[in-house]
Amino acid sequence: MEAEFKRILLLNNFTEDKANKLAEIYTVNSLEGVYTHGVNRFTKFIKYVKDGYIKPDKEPVCIHRAGSLEQWNGQLGPGPLNALVCTDRAIELASQQGMGCVALANTNHWMRGGTYGWRAAKQGYAFIGWTNTIKNMPAWGGIDAKLGNNPLVIAVPYQHEAIVLDMAMSQFSYGALDLHVLRKQQLPVPGGYDKDGVLSTDPDAIRTSERTLPIGYWKGSGLSLLLDILGAVLSGGFPVVDISKQNVENNLSQVFMAINLSKLSNFNAIPGLLQHIIDDYHQSIPDKNSKVLYPGERVLTVREENTRNGIPVIQKVWDDILALK
Amino acid sequence: MEAEFKRILLLNNFTEDKANKLAEIYTVNSLEGVYTHGVNRFTKFIKYVKDGYIKPDKEPVCIHRAGSLEQWNGQLGPGPLNALVCTDRAIELASQQGMGCVALANTNHWMRGGTYGWRAAKQGYAFIGWTNTIKNMPAWGGIDAKLGNNPLVIAVPYQHEAIVLDMAMSQFSYGALDLHVLRKQQLPVPGGYDKDGVLSTDPDAIRTSERTLPIGYWKGSGLSLLLDILGAVLSGGFPVVDISKQNVENNLSQVFMAINLSKLSNFNAIPGLLQHIIDDYHQSIPDKNSKVLYPGERVLTVREENTRNGIPVIQKVWDDILALK
Repeated sequence: MEAEFKRILLLNNFTEDKANKLAEIYTVNSLEGVYTHGVNRFTKFIKYVKDGYIKPDKEPVCIHRAGSLEQWNGQLGPGPLNALVCTDRAIELASQQGMGCVALANTNHWMRGGTYGWRAAKQGYAFIGWTNTIKNMPAWGGIDAKLGNNPLVIAVPYQHEAIVLDMAMSQFSYGALDLHVLRKQQLPVPGGYDKDGVLSTDPDAIRTSERTLPIGYWKGSGLSLLLDILGAVLSGGFPVVDISKQNVENNLSQVFMAINLSKLSNFNAIPGLLQHIIDDYHQSIPDKNSKVLYPGERVLTVREENTRNGIPVIQKVWDDILALK
Repeated sequence: MEAEFKRILLLNNFTEDKANKLAEIYTVNSLEGVYTHGVNRFTKFIKYVKDGYIKPDKEPVCIHRAGSLEQWNGQLGPGPLNALVCTDRAIELASQQGMGCVALANTNHWMRGGTYGWRAAKQGYAFIGWTNTIKNMPAWGGIDAKLGNNPLVIAVPYQHEAIVLDMAMSQFSYGALDLHVLRKQQLPVPGGYDKDGVLSTDPDAIRTSERTLPIGYWKGSGLSLLLDILGAVLSGGFPVVDISKQNVENNLSQVFMAINLSKLSNFNAIPGLLQHIIDDYHQSIPDKNSKVLYPGERVLTVREENTRNGIPVIQKVWDDILALK
């Protein structure tokens, strides 16, 4: 998979180094089960490159420094590479100053936000980051989409891996609604309103009304708004309202914060503290024989399974990739 | 109200300065409609002082510095005063270094998290802060309480006021459940599970099962866990599991981050950007004639009403306060 991605990237004006990095990100996201932002999304990425929305030769540049806070311009370069550079820069700032924050304007979709949380955490840093998106969700009390689902990522190192929360502000993405329609399944919990304004678990009714539900109703609506505001304010980039006036979802605003745990007075006690918290968490009395998992725990199992058995692909998706030039 | 609070605080070993500050916080929280963390909570605060859980003579001390990140020990001093000191210190760090983060261990309940968001935002700073709590919510997939509702606050300056999100990770607090039971009202949306594990809007059934619902189900469960982890890791203080082993809810861990907007390259454009975002947000097509409000917008109305008409109090609550010595 990685070799195939690289072949296509090289044909599309990416340097060897950039092709390697992007191929790895798309492959690892797939290996770890996030197919929607891995193999299933690769063809669209290449289309955006061909259409000129993603610029293979552009790199993020620092436009302003203010101590542990920096503002960068992504120049519409490839989202995952821009995000890698900014994650690494936040880590560098944190290594010097305790914490670092990089706000990035004018970038493209970063694919899986967890990528950057895992990256920071595996190097021993705590990470908080988020992105805004195109509008895809009504504000609480409204019926037309005004908010993005603005994924938020929080990560901490744990054992030799990480605890990584990677969550969008919508209860279900449109991709998840589509999948439930395809499988003729109802949603496990209400995911939006039908056209009559009644809470619904019917994915098709919600797709039709376009009234998707923020997590926690008024709460996720508020959190989505604040993440968008902070992203646009700190980076000087586009808020959701302006992203949504474009033909495609780009010119996104993102924030990357890293915290240097090794500079804390309690650094040596952190592994024990985390073990203590997770041990208690795992001792939850399970509902219906389900195991209570921490955010990111399932990734370990999927990674192992896919490493052993290969990464499952949808034949049509893979055929389309093989045909890319 | 403020004079009465001050009278009682002075009788309970608070200095003039501390009594003034605490009386103001409890009064402003009430004036702005957050009665649960204002006038309704004052008697419990004094009880905790008398019982020795809150120590009037203790102040937070900085125990470790790492650039823009600091670790403080609250020494079980009064939560709102500890939180004020740490908010102001985060602002001071941000004024010098772009951003500042203060992690506070061993503190008491900060009452209304929004207090600190408003304080930072009114001085021109963006603010992100949170606290952990006693366990009061099961993790997703579990049935016994393992998580706190860990309120999160995000604030930005707006016009001469602020946009302030102040949200707990549970869909409804136990206080809100009690209020609905008292008024014989169902919850507007599901707030937990009944004893048979069925999603419910019946506040009494949820109180009985103690299976309150995290916002966004698995999502709020994950966010609550990560906020607890970060709070305890960064401060070196207690996580939810250890707070919950005590007789009362204290030794909390809190985080206060401030960002200096005046050091950003786009500083002068921020008011216009926020107006643009909020104008679009307010143009939402409303559901059922409700107005779409941004987080903190309702505070302005309540503050004005209560300034004009006086702060409404429950007679029993006020009588109890008048009787305090």
